[in-house]
Amino acid sequence: MSVLDEPTLARPDEFPYDRSDPAGAIAQVAEQVRNWGRWGEDDRVGTLNLITPERRAAAAGLVRTGESISLSMSFDMDGPQTGWRRRTNPVHTMLDTGTDAVTGIQGFPHGIGGADDVIAMPLQCATQWDGLGHIFDRGMAWNGRPAESVVTSLGDLVTGIEHTADLIAGRGVLLDVGRVVGEAAEGAEGAEGAVGELPDAFAITPAHLEATAKAQGVEIQPGDLLLVRTGQMARARRSVAAGQGWSGYAGGAAPGLSFTTAGWLHAHDVAAVATDTWGFEVRPNEFDEAFQPLHQVCIPNMGLTIGEMWDLDALSAACAADGRWEFLLVAGALRVTGAVGAPLNPIALR
Amino acid sequence: MSVLDEPTLARPDEFPYDRSDPAGAIAQVAEQVRNWGRWGEDDRVGTLNLITPERRAAAAGLVRTGESISLSMSFDMDGPQTGWRRRTNPVHTMLDTGTDAVTGIQGFPHGIGGADDVIAMPLQCATQWDGLGHIFDRGMAWNGRPAESVVTSLGDLVTGIEHTADLIAGRGVLLDVGRVVGEAAEGAEGAEGAVGELPDAFAITPAHLEATAKAQGVEIQPGDLLLVRTGQMARARRSVAAGQGWSGYAGGAAPGLSFTTAGWLHAHDVAAVATDTWGFEVRPNEFDEAFQPLHQVCIPNMGLTIGEMWDLDALSAACAADGRWEFLLVAGALRVTGAVGAPLNPIALR
Amino acid sequence: MSVLDEPTLARPDEFPYDRSDPAGAIAQVAEQVRNWGRWGEDDRVGTLNLITPERRAAAAGLVRTGESISLSMSFDMDGPQTGWRRRTNPVHTMLDTGTDAVTGIQGFPHGIGGADDVIAMPLQCATQWDGLGHIFDRGMAWNGRPAESVVTSLGDLVTGIEHTADLIAGRGVLLDVGRVVGEAAEGAEGAEGAVGELPDAFAITPAHLEATAKAQGVEIQPGDLLLVRTGQMARARRSVAAGQGWSGYAGGAAPGLSFTTAGWLHAHDVAAVATDTWGFEVRPNEFDEAFQPLHQVCIPNMGLTIGEMWDLDALSAACAADGRWEFLLVAGALRVTGAVGAPLNPIALR
Amino acid sequence: MSVLDEPTLARPDEFPYDRSDPAGAIAQVAEQVRNWGRWGEDDRVGTLNLITPERRAAAAGLVRTGESISLSMSFDMDGPQTGWRRRTNPVHTMLDTGTDAVTGIQGFPHGIGGADDVIAMPLQCATQWDGLGHIFDRGMAWNGRPAESVVTSLGDLVTGIEHTADLIAGRGVLLDVGRVVGEAAEGAEGAEGAVGELPDAFAITPAHLEATAKAQGVEIQPGDLLLVRTGQMARARRSVAAGQGWSGYAGGAAPGLSFTTAGWLHAHDVAAVATDTWGFEVRPNEFDEAFQPLHQVCIPNMGLTIGEMWDLDALSAACAADGRWEFLLVAGALRVTGAVGAPLNPIALR
Repeated sequence: MSVLDEPTLARPDEFPYDRSDPAGAIAQVAEQVRNWGRWGEDDRVGTLNLITPERRAAAAGLVRTGESISLSMSFDMDGPQTGWRRRTNPVHTMLDTGTDAVTGIQGFPHGIGGADDVIAMPLQCATQWDGLGHIFDRGMAWNGRPAESVVTSLGDLVTGIEHTADLIAGRGVLLDVGRVVGEAAEGAEGAEGAVGELPDAFAITPAHLEATAKAQGVEIQPGDLLLVRTGQMARARRSVAAGQGWSGYAGGAAPGLSFTTAGWLHAHDVAAVATDTWGFEVRPNEFDEAFQPLHQVCIPNMGLTIGEMWDLDALSAACAADGRWEFLLVAGALRVTGAVGAPLNPIALR
Repeated sequence: MSVLDEPTLARPDEFPYDRSDPAGAIAQVAEQVRNWGRWGEDDRVGTLNLITPERRAAAAGLVRTGESISLSMSFDMDGPQTGWRRRTNPVHTMLDTGTDAVTGIQGFPHGIGGADDVIAMPLQCATQWDGLGHIFDRGMAWNGRPAESVVTSLGDLVTGIEHTADLIAGRGVLLDVGRVVGEAAEGAEGAEGAVGELPDAFAITPAHLEATAKAQGVEIQPGDLLLVRTGQMARARRSVAAGQGWSGYAGGAAPGLSFTTAGWLHAHDVAAVATDTWGFEVRPNEFDEAFQPLHQVCIPNMGLTIGEMWDLDALSAACAADGRWEFLLVAGALRVTGAVGAPLNPIALR
Repeated sequence: MSVLDEPTLARPDEFPYDRSDPAGAIAQVAEQVRNWGRWGEDDRVGTLNLITPERRAAAAGLVRTGESISLSMSFDMDGPQTGWRRRTNPVHTMLDTGTDAVTGIQGFPHGIGGADDVIAMPLQCATQWDGLGHIFDRGMAWNGRPAESVVTSLGDLVTGIEHTADLIAGRGVLLDVGRVVGEAAEGAEGAEGAVGELPDAFAITPAHLEATAKAQGVEIQPGDLLLVRTGQMARARRSVAAGQGWSGYAGGAAPGLSFTTAGWLHAHDVAAVATDTWGFEVRPNEFDEAFQPLHQVCIPNMGLTIGEMWDLDALSAACAADGRWEFLLVAGALRVTGAVGAPLNPIALR
Repeated sequence: MSVLDEPTLARPDEFPYDRSDPAGAIAQVAEQVRNWGRWGEDDRVGTLNLITPERRAAAAGLVRTGESISLSMSFDMDGPQTGWRRRTNPVHTMLDTGTDAVTGIQGFPHGIGGADDVIAMPLQCATQWDGLGHIFDRGMAWNGRPAESVVTSLGDLVTGIEHTADLIAGRGVLLDVGRVVGEAAEGAEGAEGAVGELPDAFAITPAHLEATAKAQGVEIQPGDLLLVRTGQMARARRSVAAGQGWSGYAGGAAPGLSFTTAGWLHAHDVAAVATDTWGFEVRPNEFDEAFQPLHQVCIPNMGLTIGEMWDLDALSAACAADGRWEFLLVAGALRVTGAVGAPLNPIALR
């Protein structure tokens, strides 16, 4: 941890807010990071505006080896969901199969046979973007709109994920805080590819982000798509492999961004942020009684699109191997009209 | 149509197969284009092997302006599906909404409110890739495997779409046959952006593809992701706008690739092909009684990944505007384990 | 039509309300038929309270021949839904099949094989009860509760269909208005079983109900489960058989109860009413611009449970054959927690 | 346990089969209980044929007090499913809500507002009938048909649950083996309504069934719908109430019918059997390595319809209160075309 200029702790004493007053802290920070009106009254995409064609074209110049790395988890019944708030894992079923085809019951001519399938799933069951309609702050949605005029049972009528369909391609930067600040798990140390990971409840502060960037030799620029690896997904995957399930990955304790990073994200004008955790921010949250306070300031106030459950391990290995932590990231969500979040297969090209 | 070296017809007399014998023609062509074993006994991805890192890196060099264009249709209840073979349009419903949030029933602290959603949909309801397990030829799946050992009710156990998750990024080329060979629709001629489109039942032959490439000044190279625009989606969209629905877009008559293009696709070593139609190949099919014979030779025999219902109109306009018909195409499918097809949001960067 | 004491018309001139003022008529009638508080402040089931154990026991005494007749439509993709308000037909898919079992891929021991299935469907896609949370009148739900405190994205928190699970068994009476007042369809006249049916837009008034009861020799009693056959489902089924689809059965023009029957239903203290139509009440509705005004007075005000898309044709034939139009009706909805409507398989025992 | 003529044990030594040879025992018993051809070559409903109109009419005569008791569990996300073989709990979501209605966004006239909902669920997620297509014995389905010709990805083409829609109403008898043979749970003894229940892994033998019938003073007759209460659901419900979840109710150890009851069920010509457990038969099964061997002999060979996850506790209390253990049972499954199992709301009238 010599890369850190100063010692940091998972839950440092210097947390600058009253832990018993989340509402007060949220109100204060929300105002500091609020981007309402910055891109006009009618804006639907928030900080994604920061990805300009120029920045995107420059990002394409980062592609050297032609490696293409998917940052998506699997979408299947083996996923982390446990039914919380009716979020199941994806249920994929077949409409036609090869076993049917060979029994000759499909009724097609000249020897053609087919298979077809359907899926039922929460839009936020696995690798996903949170759309701007996903979270409200005291009844208000992104850009100062009343929540009830934005998201009804018909979906997000204003800021649905479809409005981002063309936009999310640009410079990606991976800050591998797990690798730089964390330690390899006990028992996994000797294993091939065992790399650092942060313990659950570890709050990533601006200092950790800065130290990681410095250690990696990379700088965050306006319009960047920032990926933050904690290592929790690698840990969860080991748990699954050991027959112990996801061990609370979905909704349990987790490393993640500290509430104190809101200002840092705002100051750096990142276009979007994604992590390898279920909930982006540290859990338990940093207030005595709270539920995802960083979401509350970032999504409806800053207009920040947030990615969760991204699998950053293969990308981390590739970046570590040649020391290049920036790449072209193409990460358009499935174009579901009115979605407040949507699954995707993010691709890093390097 | 002076761009064509020789007259071509939608259903030319010179169709070199016996229209009353699809099985015979399929057997013959399947053997000609068969790639079984070409990438080893264990191969799961077929012609996607042709996208090498080198080709991908070169494709990134095609990005100039930084434009990013989604080639995805909307995923919603307004889509083209009519229930054929249990394919509905996507049903997107909410788990939580803004109207709930403001009534104070969500039970969250400090003024945070949330919206969340689920979807139920056929994996091939809108913009999609057909996976290699989607079609069988006389009981055989890609690479010579028995269909019943590949796709069961558990999904595609061998060639599921998840195996392609990292791969589909490379040089994209748009052959806008509709624009080059077709004519602007009556009534739409004067409209802004009215461009050529092919009539239903128009079979695109190798000659049309060659003529279009020549007219556009572009060459197809091995490993390319080939996009073929017919204009049918633009026509369907006009029909929807006129209150007349999709007019048979899903499964009805349509322009599309002729059965005779199988050899051309094979000879050019394209990595994947996608069109703006429901079914990729011309409909009605070119045999007296047939069902998607080009699928039958291309998917299980050639190992070709096929895209359908791609929205190529915005890309077509952009390419026509500056005469550049090649671009970086990033088109990874949603990583659904065992899927025989999967939705995606393909992104063209230029 | 000699059974009618006086001439009645589908849309009689004597409609006692101003057709241009549905709101006024609804306000007036809602007050007349309102049962709020009748069964206490906490009531969740409305007029189902009228089915007492004594009445139910007496109804069991109506069973003579032991015939059992399902009044349910089929639940499948061939149903009437067209996607209106995201209502699809049921999508039934398999998790395991016999074709899988025989290929030996299921992994079960000693020769056992299995099939299993899932379904995705709107709860009101076919034969169903409308629960008391299905309709609101000027923001108020059954028993005078604010709609937003009753039905949220979590479902009906107060009057969910589960509260009726034990209750809906009692005396059923079929009023076959189609048979008594209507005429056999042209072309169907000579067919076996061709019976009378009402034309679309035919409004069934209290006079029609009285005349039918008189013709059939049956009396409506308090606590009855009233079934009203129009014959529209038989007509729709002929249309389907002729390859012309459901012809607007779901949401189009239809015979049904007149707005003027609200008082009659209230005066007779029926426990619940069901019809063989999509929407229970006549369509187009009887006001110039309206949407289901009879629902609006009956469900939230009277507390009436309403059944739709019940298949009454087999029951009609049986009743006509021996002149007994009363029976034991057992019609508990699927016990879906929080449902505002639910499918069922209603059984008439006679 | 004095009601028992002779001591019985959960897993008695006298089990008459070789526990290491399930296949052998199954082959032997399957032949003994096989009803193939008994109701003709074309039969689709098996032992349900045993419910004659006469028996049904007589059963109606059992209704005395007019009590109506639902035997259905709740269908919701709080159910017992854990995702095994893609079986989730029901996901119920709203298409429209009261919170929407009051915000005025629904677009309906004259003050009407509406709520509507959808569900996605396995057909065997809660209270259900196993249809005759649910289980195969060495590749054969009910009545000697090859499994692959009966159940494909299109569903059960021959013996789908829809064929039973009219039939399942008749004399119900509850054998409360839990109450008669079991003991009240520790800690629950003093509680109101605490009644006997069988421990997990308790195999109910013919002797237990006979002893229970004798103790209750009831006889099983041909055509009966037999309900067997073990008490496991009451135990599971206590576990849920204590915050410990369903404790393996779905698929774990459970009391249930012994493999040795197959002959007894056959000899008594019961029409159908249901229990308050997930899997009908005792678990772990009585062979060293086995999976539901009683299903394998009963469903495809005997043609027996089997009910699972029925909530028999309220009925048990009512029967115990007045000593009447027979009643009219009306238990038609949801009419899902081609289903191999289906949910229902069974109603006991007494």
